[in-house]
Amino acid sequence: MTKTRVETDTMGQMEVDASKYWGAQTERSIHNFPIGHDTFVWGRPVIRALGILKKGAAQANAELGELPQDIADLIVQAADEVISGKLDEHFPLVVFQTGSGTQSNMNSNEVISNRAIELAGGEMGSKSPVHPNDHVNRGQSSNDTFPTAMHIAVVLELNERLYGSVGKLRDTLDAKAKQYEGLVKVGRTHLQDATPITLGQEIGGWVAQLDYALEQVKHAEQGLYELAIGGTAVGTGLNAHPKFGDLAAQKYEAETGFPFRSAENKFAALSAHDALVQTSAALRTLAGALMKMANDVRWLASGPRNGIGEIDIPENEPGSSIMPGKVNPTQSEAMTMVATRVFGNDATVAFAGSQGNFQLNVFKPVMVHAVLESIRLISDACLAFNDNCAVGIEPNEAKIKHNLDINLMQVTALNRHIGYDNAAAIAKNAHKKGISLKESALELGHVTEEEFAQWVVPLDMTHS
Amino acid sequence: MTKTRVETDTMGQMEVDASKYWGAQTERSIHNFPIGHDTFVWGRPVIRALGILKKGAAQANAELGELPQDIADLIVQAADEVISGKLDEHFPLVVFQTGSGTQSNMNSNEVISNRAIELAGGEMGSKSPVHPNDHVNRGQSSNDTFPTAMHIAVVLELNERLYGSVGKLRDTLDAKAKQYEGLVKVGRTHLQDATPITLGQEIGGWVAQLDYALEQVKHAEQGLYELAIGGTAVGTGLNAHPKFGDLAAQKYEAETGFPFRSAENKFAALSAHDALVQTSAALRTLAGALMKMANDVRWLASGPRNGIGEIDIPENEPGSSIMPGKVNPTQSEAMTMVATRVFGNDATVAFAGSQGNFQLNVFKPVMVHAVLESIRLISDACLAFNDNCAVGIEPNEAKIKHNLDINLMQVTALNRHIGYDNAAAIAKNAHKKGISLKESALELGHVTEEEFAQWVVPLDMTHS
Amino acid sequence: MTKTRVETDTMGQMEVDASKYWGAQTERSIHNFPIGHDTFVWGRPVIRALGILKKGAAQANAELGELPQDIADLIVQAADEVISGKLDEHFPLVVFQTGSGTQSNMNSNEVISNRAIELAGGEMGSKSPVHPNDHVNRGQSSNDTFPTAMHIAVVLELNERLYGSVGKLRDTLDAKAKQYEGLVKVGRTHLQDATPITLGQEIGGWVAQLDYALEQVKHAEQGLYELAIGGTAVGTGLNAHPKFGDLAAQKYEAETGFPFRSAENKFAALSAHDALVQTSAALRTLAGALMKMANDVRWLASGPRNGIGEIDIPENEPGSSIMPGKVNPTQSEAMTMVATRVFGNDATVAFAGSQGNFQLNVFKPVMVHAVLESIRLISDACLAFNDNCAVGIEPNEAKIKHNLDINLMQVTALNRHIGYDNAAAIAKNAHKKGISLKESALELGHVTEEEFAQWVVPLDMTHS
Amino acid sequence: MTKTRVETDTMGQMEVDASKYWGAQTERSIHNFPIGHDTFVWGRPVIRALGILKKGAAQANAELGELPQDIADLIVQAADEVISGKLDEHFPLVVFQTGSGTQSNMNSNEVISNRAIELAGGEMGSKSPVHPNDHVNRGQSSNDTFPTAMHIAVVLELNERLYGSVGKLRDTLDAKAKQYEGLVKVGRTHLQDATPITLGQEIGGWVAQLDYALEQVKHAEQGLYELAIGGTAVGTGLNAHPKFGDLAAQKYEAETGFPFRSAENKFAALSAHDALVQTSAALRTLAGALMKMANDVRWLASGPRNGIGEIDIPENEPGSSIMPGKVNPTQSEAMTMVATRVFGNDATVAFAGSQGNFQLNVFKPVMVHAVLESIRLISDACLAFNDNCAVGIEPNEAKIKHNLDINLMQVTALNRHIGYDNAAAIAKNAHKKGISLKESALELGHVTEEEFAQWVVPLDMTHS
Repeated sequence: MTKTRVETDTMGQMEVDASKYWGAQTERSIHNFPIGHDTFVWGRPVIRALGILKKGAAQANAELGELPQDIADLIVQAADEVISGKLDEHFPLVVFQTGSGTQSNMNSNEVISNRAIELAGGEMGSKSPVHPNDHVNRGQSSNDTFPTAMHIAVVLELNERLYGSVGKLRDTLDAKAKQYEGLVKVGRTHLQDATPITLGQEIGGWVAQLDYALEQVKHAEQGLYELAIGGTAVGTGLNAHPKFGDLAAQKYEAETGFPFRSAENKFAALSAHDALVQTSAALRTLAGALMKMANDVRWLASGPRNGIGEIDIPENEPGSSIMPGKVNPTQSEAMTMVATRVFGNDATVAFAGSQGNFQLNVFKPVMVHAVLESIRLISDACLAFNDNCAVGIEPNEAKIKHNLDINLMQVTALNRHIGYDNAAAIAKNAHKKGISLKESALELGHVTEEEFAQWVVPLDMTHS
Repeated sequence: MTKTRVETDTMGQMEVDASKYWGAQTERSIHNFPIGHDTFVWGRPVIRALGILKKGAAQANAELGELPQDIADLIVQAADEVISGKLDEHFPLVVFQTGSGTQSNMNSNEVISNRAIELAGGEMGSKSPVHPNDHVNRGQSSNDTFPTAMHIAVVLELNERLYGSVGKLRDTLDAKAKQYEGLVKVGRTHLQDATPITLGQEIGGWVAQLDYALEQVKHAEQGLYELAIGGTAVGTGLNAHPKFGDLAAQKYEAETGFPFRSAENKFAALSAHDALVQTSAALRTLAGALMKMANDVRWLASGPRNGIGEIDIPENEPGSSIMPGKVNPTQSEAMTMVATRVFGNDATVAFAGSQGNFQLNVFKPVMVHAVLESIRLISDACLAFNDNCAVGIEPNEAKIKHNLDINLMQVTALNRHIGYDNAAAIAKNAHKKGISLKESALELGHVTEEEFAQWVVPLDMTHS
Repeated sequence: MTKTRVETDTMGQMEVDASKYWGAQTERSIHNFPIGHDTFVWGRPVIRALGILKKGAAQANAELGELPQDIADLIVQAADEVISGKLDEHFPLVVFQTGSGTQSNMNSNEVISNRAIELAGGEMGSKSPVHPNDHVNRGQSSNDTFPTAMHIAVVLELNERLYGSVGKLRDTLDAKAKQYEGLVKVGRTHLQDATPITLGQEIGGWVAQLDYALEQVKHAEQGLYELAIGGTAVGTGLNAHPKFGDLAAQKYEAETGFPFRSAENKFAALSAHDALVQTSAALRTLAGALMKMANDVRWLASGPRNGIGEIDIPENEPGSSIMPGKVNPTQSEAMTMVATRVFGNDATVAFAGSQGNFQLNVFKPVMVHAVLESIRLISDACLAFNDNCAVGIEPNEAKIKHNLDINLMQVTALNRHIGYDNAAAIAKNAHKKGISLKESALELGHVTEEEFAQWVVPLDMTHS
Repeated sequence: MTKTRVETDTMGQMEVDASKYWGAQTERSIHNFPIGHDTFVWGRPVIRALGILKKGAAQANAELGELPQDIADLIVQAADEVISGKLDEHFPLVVFQTGSGTQSNMNSNEVISNRAIELAGGEMGSKSPVHPNDHVNRGQSSNDTFPTAMHIAVVLELNERLYGSVGKLRDTLDAKAKQYEGLVKVGRTHLQDATPITLGQEIGGWVAQLDYALEQVKHAEQGLYELAIGGTAVGTGLNAHPKFGDLAAQKYEAETGFPFRSAENKFAALSAHDALVQTSAALRTLAGALMKMANDVRWLASGPRNGIGEIDIPENEPGSSIMPGKVNPTQSEAMTMVATRVFGNDATVAFAGSQGNFQLNVFKPVMVHAVLESIRLISDACLAFNDNCAVGIEPNEAKIKHNLDINLMQVTALNRHIGYDNAAAIAKNAHKKGISLKESALELGHVTEEEFAQWVVPLDMTHS
């Protein structure tokens, strides 16, 4: 049988697993919200952010004389353990709980309080010498702490996970674009053959999309630097020291290196999470760009014989037990599936973000969860795609040359020399007879072999 | 200067264009809601449904002794004109108004009242002998009439517009499926060559999707037969004759031929429009099916030389002034754009549908508008696609045969005769050397020419 | 160090943890798709469905003479263990993999093969006497098995999880509706006071929405009975016994009790998953209905002094350490957050569902995952809401009565007796002076105290 | 009978209404795309942008020696008429056409050509002296012109319509926020009474959301300054003068005042429209902010007796013929309906934006249409809301004071003086007995009347 201890809150006593640091309110939440437990327990990013939140709050309160230094030191020590990941198992709550994240805020208060008590040699559950509310939650309310933790978590995940992963793929593609800047191939519009481009230009278009999308995510990140901290229950800052919000934000900057600050308008910071909605939207744009790239890759690699087949991609798994040469573009498939998931997450975030009432939006947990999931999935998928596909993209030069040679669109280059009508006649004749442009041109006698060789130069047509 | 007359409501007098039948409340709405006027004025389907609504209500009230027969007859006569389209210019209001559609309900009350007064030789605006509220709106509230009109409008549009248009395209495709049931071609999975299918099977898959989607729309339509009528202001039916809802519904059935009935639970019928949400969702499924079909068509028609090119589609417009044979798949493009719009409309409908409070959902107009727009767009796009593309789809038999011949997947048929390992060796050898399966098989000596001819029969592999 | 064994596939050898049953292809997938591993590993429903799939396939193949009975028996025995959950740890793959679910299909083939080999006393990895492809995957392709497992998983989750959970909440609410069918209260439209209803009618509207939504889910479920099994790689059924699809479906019916059958059109069954899109849409309608209910509950319980306060809900957690009587409607908050998540999941499903090409839709895993997540969340949230909120909803009768007494809308009942103008005068006078209707009526002298008592009877106005 | 003339294109002759300037390709499009004609014909913003596009292109070509000056002058003159709106009736095409907007590009070429010919005294349809392709479309392709026109249209609509309309509402609210910065009222979180705020703070939160959202739209607008012009068919600029893109962009800046420039990467500019996706997303954030504000307004105005009733809003229409004082919050309803529409439009845009292939995204028309519709609806709704609601918002000071007086949350202010336990006892006692805080405090004897008056000062609690 599990050994338990008694924890109390204003509603009374609760039995808690003695090996866990959490208290009565966390325990109540476990019982009241058994929703999606397998996959919706908070993970590292939010737990760590709660640790950062509480550490900086204690430091700020101590500096402002709102907490005795020794109490603050104990809180900081326990919070550091939360930050490090050492106490993750003491955060058992799920996303679908109180919409203000109150119970996860209390979870962090309780764990830090009990761990601090333990460090001080006290009795867990005694709330002495470190009280979860009076000390750990000093000058705070769930309504301002949880959105503060949301922003910290997302900023850290963007910087420590997303930018590097997407950037790695972007750099691989950029190198490929440079490598193949002179490799001319057929362009395609409306899925139809069009005038030539280089493979480098084609890949460079993907890079430009990724660059733009990353720039948008980074712009949205600016909005996340504004923190609700200091607003307490309704945005007025009641019961917090007037300098608390600003000072706590400075502590978060010191801890993380990102320029957090207390939000100018804390009423908006509690009742709406529009910076998160914007971040989600920018992630959706990024997902859209990745979808376009991944689709192009799988179409260009389609075949082996009856598709476009202009690039080869790594064969990572048996495509079929029968068919050699069948390379299923599985990394593209994983990436495009991720894109549809990110689109769905974004729909959740925007819907939830519109549903605030008066001084509070009570869809906080579902919003931050969806944004973090999108960051995680895009990051992981970009790494997988990079390592298992992008680095191995190689042009199928024979196929590219063949396709280019039979393409009728080169005729465009003759317009200036022999006029549109004659050029059109050459193309029509070639199309009708199924012969090459050159054959058709010579047959009709509008150009000599030398002229054709001089005028119809696909590379020149790419302006590369 | 426009000649005006004075109309009154409980808030006082309004000047109204004398050539128009509407009254004071309609006039107020024009001034208060100048939102998207160019494109969001109600069109035929809603106006006609309001006419049907008021006609049947008058008939039911007369039969129940709630209206004098002569008054009812005048209302019916005016409502018939609304139904016919003769009075469309007297319905100037837009979608974005009161969320219950009150002002459009009043618009119909006012127009019918004034036209009935005119028919009776009375003075417009006098509300005598036919009063917009006491007579035309007898036993009704906007809260039950507008959702009733919504259902009537959507049911009629589904039946008179959607089913025929989609059905026409479906039948064209079905005929093509039958026509080409024996034409063998390469199958494709993961965009990669796969075992053979017939063109008829490929097209038949599209038909099956359309059939399924239409069935779902028709199922959702069942829910639309339940009408809010009889619920009046909050669902209790206060101030309506107890038999009014049922009898009015019978009148709507008589008028339209569809089995309308008064909703079993009128509280839900006013405070939610889930049958409309379901209808929108089924239209989204239909749009998804059309998107898949239109995408397949444009990919199969891609080329002319460097795409798949297994079907030809009609050339309807100059693709380019330079390139003969460039056929842009413009009907596919219009269709897939329509699909994205229907998806967006559905997002609007579902969001709006979730936002009811207490006894009323006040997103009625935006919901019905989006559903009607989706119906219209799908219907029009199906007709255009049918007439300008589907009827002219032709197989490019030479390309199909060529692609099939070079396809390595036929090797699968040898497994049973020479074993997997030998079959794989043949395929690998063919892939490596770029030769045909048959060449490879003969080269390796696992089969004779006669055996190959006997065993590798693509048509047999299609089980068609 | 982990002990390993060597497993092979057509691409070569892989080292696999010797304590695990999976083989080379599963191992490759672990390395190639490290995407969202923490939360996107397949759970019970899909693993169990894969077990059911393979068991029935083996039975059907044996019956058709395609598999020796002893091999089939071994497969059935191993598959039964997969079904039971005993082998869950041997399914390490995530959602974001090959879009056909190939690797999870192979995961099940490999695990069942190795476990069957073990049962037969053979050597794991030897593929003898039970081969993962030739035996376990006999007459199957990922392209038809994975969508078959998707349908089985969703049907079982709907029946074993969703219907019961939602039904429990529905029944609780229905009982409340009956209990309070005579408790008259103020109705509200446009958030404004309206004519009376009973609390039973108000709650009954929620029940009617749930009933409708459940009916839609059940209708969509019908479409899930159609299975892709028998279609193999492209829908033609190549390499499967002609009777395999039908017979396997019978086995699934025998195993589960649900009337599965081999899909009429298997080309559509592989290249689209519209029945899943429809199921997702119906779940969205259900989520919308739950959102409306949960919003009504929290608004009706708002206060304690400055809100509507007509119902009391259980206090499950400390709302605030300061404010007694502050009951935060946390179950409503969890429920509405779940609703926004279900909306997002549905956006993912519909988007993914529209993206099929030719003979395959390669968004299978992300689609089934999102549908299963929605089912799980709705189910869990309904149980939590039921147990921790709905069962404890109690009317605040004093507040209800007070609100009803001061409501001016009762004046409607006087229209028939003293005419609209006099009734309006009473209401206007009451509104202006802030007095009760009755005080106003008596002051103006239009009715006697007895008449007022006789005519203005809120309960009568509810037609309950 | 309509008088016609013959127009030709590369596919042959078409009869065109002689009173119209358009040519053969426009006429073909009318016949081939009869989709949603009533409401999806392009309006002013796109037609005007096409005029600007063609004017600047002619100027740039002339300057670069690519067009004779007299031809360019004629084009400029005709294009100026397109810009002015004089020729709107000559643009009959709808959104759902070729996905590159080719036919609308040709519509503008044809109209400008024919009008220029007419100005030159030539014969319409003769293509001389001004040819639609060789002159008006010189150095251009639909693939770069249409997205250029898209950006120009959206930038102009944002600046000429959106910013002013939303800004007007924002300023009205900001003035209200300042006006009521000292008016203390009950705060609300979780829909439950909370500590006091001022009405100014509450309204100020809405203003802060609008400011943030507008800033995001303006950031997205930066991306729209990058134009595809100069990329021609596939992004390489084939057949355009190397300086054409930059110079044309300068002309657009000169014409409009906005810093347009030729896009750095034109491959991305043709194959994706991510700046438009981001603009749509920012409009969605704005719509979400407006929804929150409009919801707060209607809830704060709810009543008249049984709601919150802390503000009064203008009565613009008869709410009911029975109930004086019933003010339906119709402007809030229109605004929130607009929000759901903008969300839907955004779903369309993001979906469409993800669907590019190779060198072209062929969902251009549906994307720009949805963005323009969102701009129009938000703008119109903000003006209507401002004029008919926001300007007339007035506090109901008596209700606000009453609600504040009975609020138990003020007890928080006593914590510092008498300790949490005593404060809690006061609140619990008040809640239980239904008395005021002050009554309870005096009854329990923890404070004197003077102390209570000195310590419990709601305004101080707002930190305003």
